[in-house]
Amino acid sequence: MRRAGLTGLLVTHLPDVRYACGFTGSSAALAVARRGARLFTDGRYTAQAKEEVGGANVEIVTRSPAISAAEWLAAQPGVEFAGFDSVHTTVAELNRFKGALPAVMRRTFFTALPASLVEALRLVKDEDELAIMREAALMGCALFTHILEFLRPGLREIDVAAELEYRARLNGAEGMSFETIVASGERSAMPHGRATEARLPRRGFLTLDFGIIHKGYCSDMTRTVYFGRPRADERATYQAVLDAQQAAVAAVMAGVSCGEVDEAARSVLRQAGLAEAFSHSTGHGVGLEIHEAPRLGTGQSSRLQAGMVVTIEPGAYLPGRFGVRIEDMVAVTRTGCEVMTPAPKALIEL
Amino acid sequence: MRRAGLTGLLVTHLPDVRYACGFTGSSAALAVARRGARLFTDGRYTAQAKEEVGGANVEIVTRSPAISAAEWLAAQPGVEFAGFDSVHTTVAELNRFKGALPAVMRRTFFTALPASLVEALRLVKDEDELAIMREAALMGCALFTHILEFLRPGLREIDVAAELEYRARLNGAEGMSFETIVASGERSAMPHGRATEARLPRRGFLTLDFGIIHKGYCSDMTRTVYFGRPRADERATYQAVLDAQQAAVAAVMAGVSCGEVDEAARSVLRQAGLAEAFSHSTGHGVGLEIHEAPRLGTGQSSRLQAGMVVTIEPGAYLPGRFGVRIEDMVAVTRTGCEVMTPAPKALIEL
Repeated sequence: MRRAGLTGLLVTHLPDVRYACGFTGSSAALAVARRGARLFTDGRYTAQAKEEVGGANVEIVTRSPAISAAEWLAAQPGVEFAGFDSVHTTVAELNRFKGALPAVMRRTFFTALPASLVEALRLVKDEDELAIMREAALMGCALFTHILEFLRPGLREIDVAAELEYRARLNGAEGMSFETIVASGERSAMPHGRATEARLPRRGFLTLDFGIIHKGYCSDMTRTVYFGRPRADERATYQAVLDAQQAAVAAVMAGVSCGEVDEAARSVLRQAGLAEAFSHSTGHGVGLEIHEAPRLGTGQSSRLQAGMVVTIEPGAYLPGRFGVRIEDMVAVTRTGCEVMTPAPKALIEL
Repeated sequence: MRRAGLTGLLVTHLPDVRYACGFTGSSAALAVARRGARLFTDGRYTAQAKEEVGGANVEIVTRSPAISAAEWLAAQPGVEFAGFDSVHTTVAELNRFKGALPAVMRRTFFTALPASLVEALRLVKDEDELAIMREAALMGCALFTHILEFLRPGLREIDVAAELEYRARLNGAEGMSFETIVASGERSAMPHGRATEARLPRRGFLTLDFGIIHKGYCSDMTRTVYFGRPRADERATYQAVLDAQQAAVAAVMAGVSCGEVDEAARSVLRQAGLAEAFSHSTGHGVGLEIHEAPRLGTGQSSRLQAGMVVTIEPGAYLPGRFGVRIEDMVAVTRTGCEVMTPAPKALIEL
């Protein structure tokens, strides 16, 4: 805050609130002044806030927590400028925050930040967070092991999604970290193929992309398996994607730019004649949210730091034919990275 | 648009995009000019957009769909002012939209709307939408019937959530419309009790609040059941909540204010000495989103219209003891309402 020239900070994005003070409720805002911080939430969370919040006083309000927080900040001695998170604050919300201030402060009090300041802290995970994320990734791998036993031609994609999600719950996951992707046969050529009533083929690819939430942290993994015996072109495409994935994993290291990691995957697919078939970026940060900075895309100049956790997930999609994607979560280290997703990646034929 | 003095409209909130042109992908923006509309999405959705979109041209872009849409709008002859949805547009996004415009247009081109214009259209459902929402509500009721057979003391709350969600998937739901609430024993006093590892009691309440997504539309229902034989105070509280719920349902009719419906429930609970125990509003609109306007809360002056679908869900929460909530979805009609959630509401003792 000092470096940003701020005497106050309004934190409204819930993962940031959780990170900053531990509160996990669904309605909250955190106001940070130099003298102390205060968490605002509503009457549903009185007991929970008392239990969870550290480093901040708690105030239960009947109005919007964020507006209450803005008002409180403006009334603190020594708080002249407060930053707010322009990426997670809507135009309407900002107008309401301003409306809660004394008229003389409205024009100058709030400073738009490119993120919440807290988000920048979140990108580098500490040892406790890495331990939780390893557990989350392993819970994902256990689901993959389980589902391999369950898969057979003729099942609907939604049967597979249902089984994965059911097992995740029973294993103690707090939920899925995003909508489970089960894309079979020709549908594997859709990078975002939601599970449908389509039946798993006797012969063809099946892409599974899923993640769970464990102690608030997200896992994310993709594996593509084959029913029957793959044809030569299918096998070659799979191998190219796997080579690209391995090349990108090998490129990860603190100090390397995100664009370099992306290019490591992309150049392999380019050489395999699959440049056009790889239509998305190579990966993204993951943590309390399923999509965090940094983005590992073409030309991205931001640099990896030790403790960041990112996905490495190149793919190749051939519309009307098939698609392949392989994804691990990796933790960046000073000398390379730790692969958090040990599930096998050699082509599995079922 | 004409009434709002707009010659252009930027639609970025995905449920609004879906409502306006049928596209269900996860990345899209719709630009509407007087001469026609154009949907912008990315390369993952080329085939899907062709299949789904009606009433608009489709353009596949590699940059942000919303920024592309803003640029396109600004270049259309006759488009001098474009509205944008201030409730779903962040401060950072608006700055990027403006950055994409020729410098002379930046200050004046965009007009902040209190919603997207499309959202207002969404509140009143047509017959096709009501038919889908009836199906969604009945799918919810079928899950409740199923789970009654499954429930027994000693199960963990997460076992119940897992079974509900698994069955929902198998029955063809596209997903859950919000995080399933399973709150047992003392935890039933938490209005938002996520399923935990807590065991269902031999004696005590269990609140189940859940919904599914069917053809894009959300269902939402709550039932509270009892294990064992309730004590007199538990029975009385249940009856008061049920009376309040029935009073609010009876108050629903086109033309009635949302505050009046809320007061119908609240006055019953007040007379039962439970005014303080009812700590949230009586209900909310539901449709493509789980929470839509209107809000049925204290003093809300907006009026119900025929075709709106709202929840009626009073509750009473006694911290350290127990809680009860009962919720139906109802469709507002000219003369009253249609209850879309036929599952029984008399106290079930298991």
